[in-house]
Amino acid sequence: MANDKKFVKAITSREEDFAQWYTDVVREAELCDYSSVKGCLNYLPNGYAIWENIRADLDKRFKETGVENVYLPMLIPENLLQKEADHVEGFAPEVAWVTHGGMERLQERFCIRPTSETLFCELWSRTVQSYRDLPKVWNQWNSVLRWEKTTRPFLRSREFLWQEGHTIHATYEEAEERTLLMWRVYRDFISESLAIPYVAGRKTESEKFAGAQDTYTVEALMHDGKALQSATSHFFGKAFPDAFDIKYLDKDNELKSVYETSWGLSTRIIGAIIMVHGDDSGLVLPPRIAPKQVRVIPVAQHKEGVLEKAEELLAAVQAAGIRADIDDSEKSPGWKFSEQEMLGIPARIEIGPKDIEKKQVVVVRRDTREKIVFSMEEVAEKLGDLLETIQKDMYDRAKAFLDSHIDEAVTMDEMKEKFKENRGFIKAMWCGDEKCEDEIKTETGGAGSRCLIEDEDAISDTCIYCGKKAKYKVFWGKSY
Amino acid sequence: MANDKKFVKAITSREEDFAQWYTDVVREAELCDYSSVKGCLNYLPNGYAIWENIRADLDKRFKETGVENVYLPMLIPENLLQKEADHVEGFAPEVAWVTHGGMERLQERFCIRPTSETLFCELWSRTVQSYRDLPKVWNQWNSVLRWEKTTRPFLRSREFLWQEGHTIHATYEEAEERTLLMWRVYRDFISESLAIPYVAGRKTESEKFAGAQDTYTVEALMHDGKALQSATSHFFGKAFPDAFDIKYLDKDNELKSVYETSWGLSTRIIGAIIMVHGDDSGLVLPPRIAPKQVRVIPVAQHKEGVLEKAEELLAAVQAAGIRADIDDSEKSPGWKFSEQEMLGIPARIEIGPKDIEKKQVVVVRRDTREKIVFSMEEVAEKLGDLLETIQKDMYDRAKAFLDSHIDEAVTMDEMKEKFKENRGFIKAMWCGDEKCEDEIKTETGGAGSRCLIEDEDAISDTCIYCGKKAKYKVFWGKSY
Repeated sequence: MANDKKFVKAITSREEDFAQWYTDVVREAELCDYSSVKGCLNYLPNGYAIWENIRADLDKRFKETGVENVYLPMLIPENLLQKEADHVEGFAPEVAWVTHGGMERLQERFCIRPTSETLFCELWSRTVQSYRDLPKVWNQWNSVLRWEKTTRPFLRSREFLWQEGHTIHATYEEAEERTLLMWRVYRDFISESLAIPYVAGRKTESEKFAGAQDTYTVEALMHDGKALQSATSHFFGKAFPDAFDIKYLDKDNELKSVYETSWGLSTRIIGAIIMVHGDDSGLVLPPRIAPKQVRVIPVAQHKEGVLEKAEELLAAVQAAGIRADIDDSEKSPGWKFSEQEMLGIPARIEIGPKDIEKKQVVVVRRDTREKIVFSMEEVAEKLGDLLETIQKDMYDRAKAFLDSHIDEAVTMDEMKEKFKENRGFIKAMWCGDEKCEDEIKTETGGAGSRCLIEDEDAISDTCIYCGKKAKYKVFWGKSY
Repeated sequence: MANDKKFVKAITSREEDFAQWYTDVVREAELCDYSSVKGCLNYLPNGYAIWENIRADLDKRFKETGVENVYLPMLIPENLLQKEADHVEGFAPEVAWVTHGGMERLQERFCIRPTSETLFCELWSRTVQSYRDLPKVWNQWNSVLRWEKTTRPFLRSREFLWQEGHTIHATYEEAEERTLLMWRVYRDFISESLAIPYVAGRKTESEKFAGAQDTYTVEALMHDGKALQSATSHFFGKAFPDAFDIKYLDKDNELKSVYETSWGLSTRIIGAIIMVHGDDSGLVLPPRIAPKQVRVIPVAQHKEGVLEKAEELLAAVQAAGIRADIDDSEKSPGWKFSEQEMLGIPARIEIGPKDIEKKQVVVVRRDTREKIVFSMEEVAEKLGDLLETIQKDMYDRAKAFLDSHIDEAVTMDEMKEKFKENRGFIKAMWCGDEKCEDEIKTETGGAGSRCLIEDEDAISDTCIYCGKKAKYKVFWGKSY
């Protein structure tokens, strides 16, 4: 049964006010709403179903690389959070503290996990003893809490859903390989399943995860020209696990350190799906993760045989393995079309008395609005291919947008000018000094380093800001 | 790849010390362990994988009845928890309180959800306006926290995983129907997928959920004769949603109350699986929810061709849709058998040089230890049926055990005598007075009312305790 809303409200256009457009889409598509807990979201059925599909797809990819799922507590004792200096410095200012259990004041405070490296390390410090116990390649799907001051649906909220993978390995090389493997899994998932193209690379020192040695990121470009960090994979080396005293007895009978990684993707990615693919009629969901891929909409359904035929069609489409529903509510076809478009359902099938007479149906693509006439007999069979075509076309359009929003700059004037136009990513050289990184961000009105570019030729020999010798080529961009 | 443990420790026998046997199995099968957070568990891969399969199976059953999944915050503002008197009285003494966010003391405390009725009602009070917005049939898979004093793996811990379904309806009848429907879904799931038989019925006033009008329970019987409450479905009537001022405008233009239900099943059920099916060699998992259903164990694997043939067999078994792995570690076959038995993998395939010569394999059932010889060609094809047979036999054995542990009593002496022997469930008549219920529990050393029996003839006319007129027939039992 289709959603039984009474009407679809108009939403702000993207060009007029992108931020308002985003808020409107989230509200009108009923993806989530703010709860009575400031900064925390209620994930409603339409929004949560997208997350369920993301989860199922990504979890399968994880397991194919040997990942095992676990679940660790939501509470972290204060002394445990403090074991690694950079980590506690990064997270302590933004955690929520539990001080009372039942009627009693606790002797030691617990924080609600902002991330779980410390709990995984504590567990492994007790249970890993021999080389036979390695590697551990674990993941959990859970929620974490960070006491943010400003919040926006999916993009930044106090509690959010994510997965956090944590692994330890006997060697540096194996851990590094796992870091890069999971970075690859994210890139494949984001491009293949979400139809979102990206730039990707290593983060600078100031942008990496608190306590990590290296952070690898996947950065997508939203329609307003801002970047969104979509997934990260962190290499910790041995400093972090050493702080927790995780040691193993190797084959040669020596006690050795382990090497750690962690990697995560959160419900922020739903924000990326909205802002990469959405349009002025609402959401546009990639077929592979759309909760419903096709909606059957009867036209003049009061006429004899229409509803019956529409139900028949629905059954045939579902039997072909397509996630489909029907809107047989009392609303006008126009309302129904608007709702299907607002929800981003990738295609609709319109079926009325004339279609039945001609033994055909009209299929309308959500992404292009193109109308395609199929014979009644072949439609169920051909929809699968059409959905794959939509998926591919959505990626190609987003890729063309990304490519046309990557540019380069040699001088600060040039760079500032380009960021005035919301140019997306600008490539420019950098000396590696954090001061220059900060100044570039300030002078461009917020364009920070998104990631390092390791495999291309230099644009110039000198840092775009200070003129000293350049060490890195960097993607700069404003971001969510 | 199989688990690479070095050896399997002996576990206590069930007859010797059932509680210790349980703890030993949980530890040796590596299902979970205690974390550094007192009373909270780390769910390890072997334990969490069971929960993942339970979740997938039950979630499918939910969705077939029209349930939609959502996710609401883990924090509840103190004023919200206090809106319904019985509910706050039931839960306030056992919640954890968040008093600080980041560096600041909060103006209002939040508790970590012990259950989420209040949050669902708050959301609906803002969003439900018309009869068109009803029903809401929602569920979430999450964790909740109750500040328990004593804890045992899976059976009672401060944080535990569960699903909590919450629904509201326009009429009393529809809500009552949903309560009973979900109770039926649980009973089907528990008997069909977990091979666990049960008794089921309505709870007494003193045993029902805090704030509910009626609670329906599913009670399983553990091997030590104690009951375990395995799932509950609650009917709230309109008092609870009225406390949150959820009203809708009906077709007749009148403002009306809604009727509410909630229903849940938690990781406690893993404790039931262990204690119903396990034996002195460890876990025995029902094939339908076993993470691995079959393990291939090569014998004399150093001999030419054995490993190769074993791998071939594994591929064939997996291709037949069976969840299978191989233990090709350097351990002796005896160790490997013990480990497979400890983990409760429903069947193993032994394959050695002689088997290869004879073009056959030996399949050993975990539940009965029966050995069955299959020809190499037919084994993959026939395993599916064998697993279904194991599933059925496990249910039948547990059902025979349950049936032989249900008895009845007319006098307190008779009842007390029978509970001395750990008799399971005793049926007896009761007047309906809570004082008698309490006294029966005290005098029998802990046998409380498990549920009412509504559809059978009376055993006698009088309450087994006070001798006054009997109103109810009750299943009494000691419980976890």
